[in-house]
Amino acid sequence: MSSASYDRRYVLTLGCPDRPGIIARITSFIAEFGGSIVEAGYHSDAETGWFFTRQAIAASTVPFELDELRDRFSGVAADLGPETEWRVHDSGARGRAVLLVSRDGHCLHDLLGRAAAGELPATIEAVIGNHPDLASMTEAHGVKFHYVPFPKDPAARGPAFDEVRALVDAHDPHAVVLARFMQVLPADLCEHWAGRAINIHHSFLPSFVGARPYHQAFVRGVKLIGATCHYVTAELDAGPIIEQDVSRIDHADDVRDMVRQGRDIERVVLARGLRWHLEGRVLVHGRRTVVFS
Amino acid sequence: MSSASYDRRYVLTLGCPDRPGIIARITSFIAEFGGSIVEAGYHSDAETGWFFTRQAIAASTVPFELDELRDRFSGVAADLGPETEWRVHDSGARGRAVLLVSRDGHCLHDLLGRAAAGELPATIEAVIGNHPDLASMTEAHGVKFHYVPFPKDPAARGPAFDEVRALVDAHDPHAVVLARFMQVLPADLCEHWAGRAINIHHSFLPSFVGARPYHQAFVRGVKLIGATCHYVTAELDAGPIIEQDVSRIDHADDVRDMVRQGRDIERVVLARGLRWHLEGRVLVHGRRTVVFS
Amino acid sequence: MSSASYDRRYVLTLGCPDRPGIIARITSFIAEFGGSIVEAGYHSDAETGWFFTRQAIAASTVPFELDELRDRFSGVAADLGPETEWRVHDSGARGRAVLLVSRDGHCLHDLLGRAAAGELPATIEAVIGNHPDLASMTEAHGVKFHYVPFPKDPAARGPAFDEVRALVDAHDPHAVVLARFMQVLPADLCEHWAGRAINIHHSFLPSFVGARPYHQAFVRGVKLIGATCHYVTAELDAGPIIEQDVSRIDHADDVRDMVRQGRDIERVVLARGLRWHLEGRVLVHGRRTVVFS
Amino acid sequence: MSSASYDRRYVLTLGCPDRPGIIARITSFIAEFGGSIVEAGYHSDAETGWFFTRQAIAASTVPFELDELRDRFSGVAADLGPETEWRVHDSGARGRAVLLVSRDGHCLHDLLGRAAAGELPATIEAVIGNHPDLASMTEAHGVKFHYVPFPKDPAARGPAFDEVRALVDAHDPHAVVLARFMQVLPADLCEHWAGRAINIHHSFLPSFVGARPYHQAFVRGVKLIGATCHYVTAELDAGPIIEQDVSRIDHADDVRDMVRQGRDIERVVLARGLRWHLEGRVLVHGRRTVVFS
Repeated sequence: MSSASYDRRYVLTLGCPDRPGIIARITSFIAEFGGSIVEAGYHSDAETGWFFTRQAIAASTVPFELDELRDRFSGVAADLGPETEWRVHDSGARGRAVLLVSRDGHCLHDLLGRAAAGELPATIEAVIGNHPDLASMTEAHGVKFHYVPFPKDPAARGPAFDEVRALVDAHDPHAVVLARFMQVLPADLCEHWAGRAINIHHSFLPSFVGARPYHQAFVRGVKLIGATCHYVTAELDAGPIIEQDVSRIDHADDVRDMVRQGRDIERVVLARGLRWHLEGRVLVHGRRTVVFS
Repeated sequence: MSSASYDRRYVLTLGCPDRPGIIARITSFIAEFGGSIVEAGYHSDAETGWFFTRQAIAASTVPFELDELRDRFSGVAADLGPETEWRVHDSGARGRAVLLVSRDGHCLHDLLGRAAAGELPATIEAVIGNHPDLASMTEAHGVKFHYVPFPKDPAARGPAFDEVRALVDAHDPHAVVLARFMQVLPADLCEHWAGRAINIHHSFLPSFVGARPYHQAFVRGVKLIGATCHYVTAELDAGPIIEQDVSRIDHADDVRDMVRQGRDIERVVLARGLRWHLEGRVLVHGRRTVVFS
Repeated sequence: MSSASYDRRYVLTLGCPDRPGIIARITSFIAEFGGSIVEAGYHSDAETGWFFTRQAIAASTVPFELDELRDRFSGVAADLGPETEWRVHDSGARGRAVLLVSRDGHCLHDLLGRAAAGELPATIEAVIGNHPDLASMTEAHGVKFHYVPFPKDPAARGPAFDEVRALVDAHDPHAVVLARFMQVLPADLCEHWAGRAINIHHSFLPSFVGARPYHQAFVRGVKLIGATCHYVTAELDAGPIIEQDVSRIDHADDVRDMVRQGRDIERVVLARGLRWHLEGRVLVHGRRTVVFS
Repeated sequence: MSSASYDRRYVLTLGCPDRPGIIARITSFIAEFGGSIVEAGYHSDAETGWFFTRQAIAASTVPFELDELRDRFSGVAADLGPETEWRVHDSGARGRAVLLVSRDGHCLHDLLGRAAAGELPATIEAVIGNHPDLASMTEAHGVKFHYVPFPKDPAARGPAFDEVRALVDAHDPHAVVLARFMQVLPADLCEHWAGRAINIHHSFLPSFVGARPYHQAFVRGVKLIGATCHYVTAELDAGPIIEQDVSRIDHADDVRDMVRQGRDIERVVLARGLRWHLEGRVLVHGRRTVVFS
């Protein structure tokens, strides 16, 4: 659950078909130039025969530039087969995040605070709301707020989504965070932001998909409520899960109690999921994720 | 989360339409004969307008027999309206439980151990298995084991269920525990044992209803697995929930890991739910429960 | 864990020597004027023979003013003996809190956000810091910030504490919150604010009292870190505990990881403890608390 | 939190001073003979400059015997420096455990059940009790029970400890489990069984060292109780911690409630810690542990 050091790192993440010798191939490549591995995670998926790794190399031990590291590694990757997917990112290059919100400000407030405290390895570039309510909270943190009104008729929301898309894409963000946005993204936007759009859903998925999950939880009489941070896909609330957590309730808690208590889980689950995403700790594999936390 | 004292108690549980003065009426009744309330729980359900209470009275402070206590209280209950449901049970009168099992012995082993250690306020009268595997474990604890083979064809299981019913009913048990029984009870048995049949389901319901929930959880890629103790009703895995808990997993856990880790949650969730049921801490209200734990 | 309704309530809290009939006496008093009890909590402490209760009465069902309710109840209290301690507070009368901070802003930011969102039943009247760092965060929320510099020499801090005391007392607050204040209050201030000064300590007390608890936790190699919200008393980190929680760590987490992860526990533990205090849910009994959450 | 596969493995564990190239050296060695790494864990301790790894190699992919694997690897280990500590164990070679108990049987019962269900990678060779109470429970599982009475006078217990030592050593066990043994081992026995003697302490250490921890927890008024599984060292309750967990209590729970609720944590914490120890997942580093769970 960690990030042992905060010095600058080059972080390699890779997925490829599993076979003996992959770790040796990669770590020998790193050892050859004297690279020091600060953090290493490995996973072999027995079911799909896929291999995943994340290697954080101390940047100070790499005797050339990042581009050359990438160039050199591309040869290793080629050896691992044409299906290999990999990237190297620089922990010193600050990430960019854009937040989509509606009226409920607890996740926004929390993320703004974390960004200000340096807890989040990203700059919040902009906040876009389909209601104007959270403009002043955003601007008090020196962040630009865009109000994009959404028509009541779902069928008429295309232009609003187009505007959101343009505003987001202007920042070329590493993360598009639906911080209680309460709008279902159209399939083409899900596709366009695939692997970058992160949602916080206020239930322990797959329970209580869709609208009013706390109300659903109350009606069902569950004894724990939860929250789920997941990548957004075209199927509602069904994308790969990054993080989840729960909190105990009892019969005396009504829906408003659940809403209040649930906020504490939502805040922390979204913040953890977003940080892991930004630090390159999350690798998507079909409908599941590998999280090297 | 407690049971402040272990001395003998008369435990009153009651549900009725809410209105001012109920608590005063009940507690004045108890005060009149000098009864000492050792534990008290109250709940007003704002949504349904129903009132619930559980009062544990030190038996040593009641100057007459249990039957007379019941007689006298029936007058109070009548004042609270014709819909009032109540009962008084004697914590000194040991409960009776019958367990239904299949091949997986972890819940059975756990409950036998708790019963032997005096942790469970009930005697395990008998264990009935649709496989003979757990006979010796049961008999090592001095408990009678009945093997009732079930035919492969679900449509042909009627006689087997009849036999189970007769074996269970011979003990007139306070609890019929499906300790990983893996058979869906027919609707008439659910009805017959309503409020007494308790199941442990190996998922965090309502997620992963039905067969192979850990496999379903693996496929969905959840980050926590759970278990649910609930009353059995005719709708599969949909009865009122008594208790639930969860345990964290990660991408490295395959289905067998989940099964092993899940057993620890199943054991403890079933044991808690059963104890609460036996101590009269669980009041069913529609599809929900009030648990004065 | 609840507060079933958010309508205005008169909340009675009471502690007295236990004997039969207390609940009947109190609830009959309430029933006589037709009062509706929305929430009720009772506790008999077997060890000390003390009785505690919290009764939330719907204000709309009380046919007279709060002062008259208090007047009338004082007769009941007198019957319960001279040691009886009680008060009735009006949930509609907004509480006042003053926060003491140092440089670490995560708890302050969280509480300001909760206050703004209406999650906290109090107004944050002022924030006092022994460093100026958090002034702008405070003022962005429209709250007054007072900077009171503290001399390096602990023996010379008397005048600074006098100034803090005067600034705090000017608001006659219901809660004086040490939101990571990092200064040990002198004994006379502990006494002066007894039952109102609330601290958040960044360990699972009684482990790791005093300075640098995360560093102590790292050295000891614990597998969970925690936070504790407690009333401040003259003995360091030894006051009655209101709330605690923990979070799992592993060998890969160094002190900085613990600090970051610990903040999430500190935030939520302090917020819960403070809310319970403000809602009259916490009754102190010697070195322990009764929390009717 | 896992053990991805249950096929036979050769498990290498190693600790040595950290420097670039260690992982490459080890994994190249494995790749050379076509070994398939099923599970891999790495940790660099920034504070002490030490490196740790655990590699589980599918035995079916090793083209020679275990002894030859060890022989060959000793050359690699020599290259990593004279301080290097390592071992290779065969997951197919069943471990041996001896249990020390007193009167409280919940941990014993739980471990016997897990061993019977194949959940524990060890055979329970014998149980030794300083009271005869748990003899029949032990023997019902077909395990030999030795009763070694302990004199009341602590100073006179030397011969009893000598007898325990002889009984234990006769089995040359991989784990000596103090399953609520309630006796403080003499320093020489701690030394003799160093790294193999595992204790379950019924508190969240370092809180509540020594006798009657639940009573201590009650007096202090904590809101969570815990249990700690740790290696036994000469300093009481101060050995390296393997695993800990906690459970929420409230003011209504007295010491007996804590004892009952605490048993559920003790059982599971001990079982987890013991399994990890037996699977070679725990590496001791000074007063801390690295746990590749």
